[in-house]
Amino acid sequence: MRTLKVDLGDRSYPIHIGPGLLPEVGRLCREAGFPLQSPLLIVTDSEVGPLYLDRVASSLADEGFRTVVHTIPSGEASKSLENFEAIMTTAITGGLDRSSAVLALGGGVVGDLAGFVAASYMRGIAFVQLPTTVLAHDSSVGGKVAINHPLAKNMIGAFHQPKMVVYDLDALKTLPKRQILSGLAEVVKQGLMIDPEFVTWLEEHAEGLVALRPDLIGEALEHSCAIKVGVVTQDEREFGIRAILNLGHTLGHAIEAVGGYGTFLHGEAISIGMAGSALLAVKLGRDRAIYTDTIRVLKAFGLPTVLPDRYSEDELIEAMMHDKKFKQGKVTFILPESIGSVSIVEGIEESAVREVIGQLKKGDSPW
Amino acid sequence: MRTLKVDLGDRSYPIHIGPGLLPEVGRLCREAGFPLQSPLLIVTDSEVGPLYLDRVASSLADEGFRTVVHTIPSGEASKSLENFEAIMTTAITGGLDRSSAVLALGGGVVGDLAGFVAASYMRGIAFVQLPTTVLAHDSSVGGKVAINHPLAKNMIGAFHQPKMVVYDLDALKTLPKRQILSGLAEVVKQGLMIDPEFVTWLEEHAEGLVALRPDLIGEALEHSCAIKVGVVTQDEREFGIRAILNLGHTLGHAIEAVGGYGTFLHGEAISIGMAGSALLAVKLGRDRAIYTDTIRVLKAFGLPTVLPDRYSEDELIEAMMHDKKFKQGKVTFILPESIGSVSIVEGIEESAVREVIGQLKKGDSPW
Repeated sequence: MRTLKVDLGDRSYPIHIGPGLLPEVGRLCREAGFPLQSPLLIVTDSEVGPLYLDRVASSLADEGFRTVVHTIPSGEASKSLENFEAIMTTAITGGLDRSSAVLALGGGVVGDLAGFVAASYMRGIAFVQLPTTVLAHDSSVGGKVAINHPLAKNMIGAFHQPKMVVYDLDALKTLPKRQILSGLAEVVKQGLMIDPEFVTWLEEHAEGLVALRPDLIGEALEHSCAIKVGVVTQDEREFGIRAILNLGHTLGHAIEAVGGYGTFLHGEAISIGMAGSALLAVKLGRDRAIYTDTIRVLKAFGLPTVLPDRYSEDELIEAMMHDKKFKQGKVTFILPESIGSVSIVEGIEESAVREVIGQLKKGDSPW
Repeated sequence: MRTLKVDLGDRSYPIHIGPGLLPEVGRLCREAGFPLQSPLLIVTDSEVGPLYLDRVASSLADEGFRTVVHTIPSGEASKSLENFEAIMTTAITGGLDRSSAVLALGGGVVGDLAGFVAASYMRGIAFVQLPTTVLAHDSSVGGKVAINHPLAKNMIGAFHQPKMVVYDLDALKTLPKRQILSGLAEVVKQGLMIDPEFVTWLEEHAEGLVALRPDLIGEALEHSCAIKVGVVTQDEREFGIRAILNLGHTLGHAIEAVGGYGTFLHGEAISIGMAGSALLAVKLGRDRAIYTDTIRVLKAFGLPTVLPDRYSEDELIEAMMHDKKFKQGKVTFILPESIGSVSIVEGIEESAVREVIGQLKKGDSPW
């Protein structure tokens, strides 16, 4: 087990990464100081629960904790106000008090939803992330929690740092391949954003990473978490630099919203979004190699880089206008300056974005 | 206009109190630095809107602000997840961005609900309180925002400090008398909690306060706000001393939940709750004068001190178990030590609470 420390003053917390950690959750919760008198709520989903819930629940029971469980259907559609209310009901009837904690056992959907419950129940109780996917290495770090509004993704939420992240790499073994690739898209994003050497390393080891070779995937995820920790500790509430984490996300979120949550997985959507950001960068005069290099890396991981024809420009633009990065009538993009370096570009004209969307459907750059 | 400063580091804010302030809201929002490009959302209710919305909206328009309005039905039942979602929809379709603000024009219900919207929209945007009731002098200070779960009041919420409170005392003139009395219950509570001289002053001037004599009501509300500010700045997130603000609220919230939100107004419920706390204090061996003095002050304001027979002990106890002050199987009460002084008493046995509920229906203390 390796431990990264997220240093945020009185909201600091550890990220434990390694194999075989879910059976240690009870011990780690004891050591973190959670009182045995206050019940713990485990939130999980219909795919992860059958695989790993017993492991976590019995580990907690062995230490003397009482637990309450709430299982949601797997998938992005579960990040709804309906499920939020249902989990609140479970928390209340289960007797959770201010010293209780919510444990999110699953991927990003479970983490985001359970995290917003933890942020809001009795105005905020403790929260523990138990990510079980590659993608969730990203969402479980940094304290952003949210649910979706029918009109826009992650529109209702909070900043609520976990007390602890326990990332059992064994849980990744049962992931469908498409989920693994989607998760690796966020790993690639961390590299494209800030770390050119990491991008080179990732491209070289793409095959082994997709196959979840233990040495490689552990190193990639730890490094990816560390990159995110570095950004988040500089700017916890996204007043500035933290926005670079949204590379590929402005368009990616719009693709998810327009396609219907779940049509493209999150990582697939941001992969196309990163291709779009590279196109936009080139259109605005940056080096064409930015686009070709970005595409090459994404394709090494079997990730999509072309936008299907059926996505309407109007609908994508409309969805972007509802995005949190849309402000005072213009849209902000995170654009690559080179591989492993980005800048925040505000006030991009709608016409440029429309042109890039058109080009993204052809899968090539004329610029 | 007088201005109290709430000193909470980078979350500090002013409370402006005085007559004629609603037409100044536009100017005050400009001076507070809100950008004209970002629309403002005014949340109000069906009783307050027709009286004061024009005043606020035109004052904002005069300064060049764009506004979006959402009106909810008046009453505690509006603090629901349904209204929360509906306001979110208005905010999204109205184009609110991260630099926008939510203005709560109304009483505590509007403030709590709009405040939780502000706390959660895009993970938190600016919030301005425009209280129009006596009661809201209390809820508009301190940053506690929340909505109700069908099983328990204020169960879903956040700590989200406003950027500014603008308290126009002219708005009180249209309040029904029962609302005035309910609001004065929180003023009396601040005194009973921490300030014996203030209690004496309040009792002496009860008649003039109920009649809203401008000099008296202004002084009372400013002093009551100042007491609350003093407590909140010591303990923003209620890890300790802030809990004393809950004098009368453990039982009061249960009375509201069991009776159905709106049967008793909040101030009426906590008036009975304060009578109950005094009874419990006497039962636990404190001076009997605590009870008789408390009752005398509450009655001077025409506030209820007897619990109607129809309230079942079982239901009240059940509701208290869902209260945030119920922790690890026992209940915490704020109990008077004397008039103007309280202590936090944890671990009170259910049997003692049951006995007090029975006695509270008789309206007397045998102890």
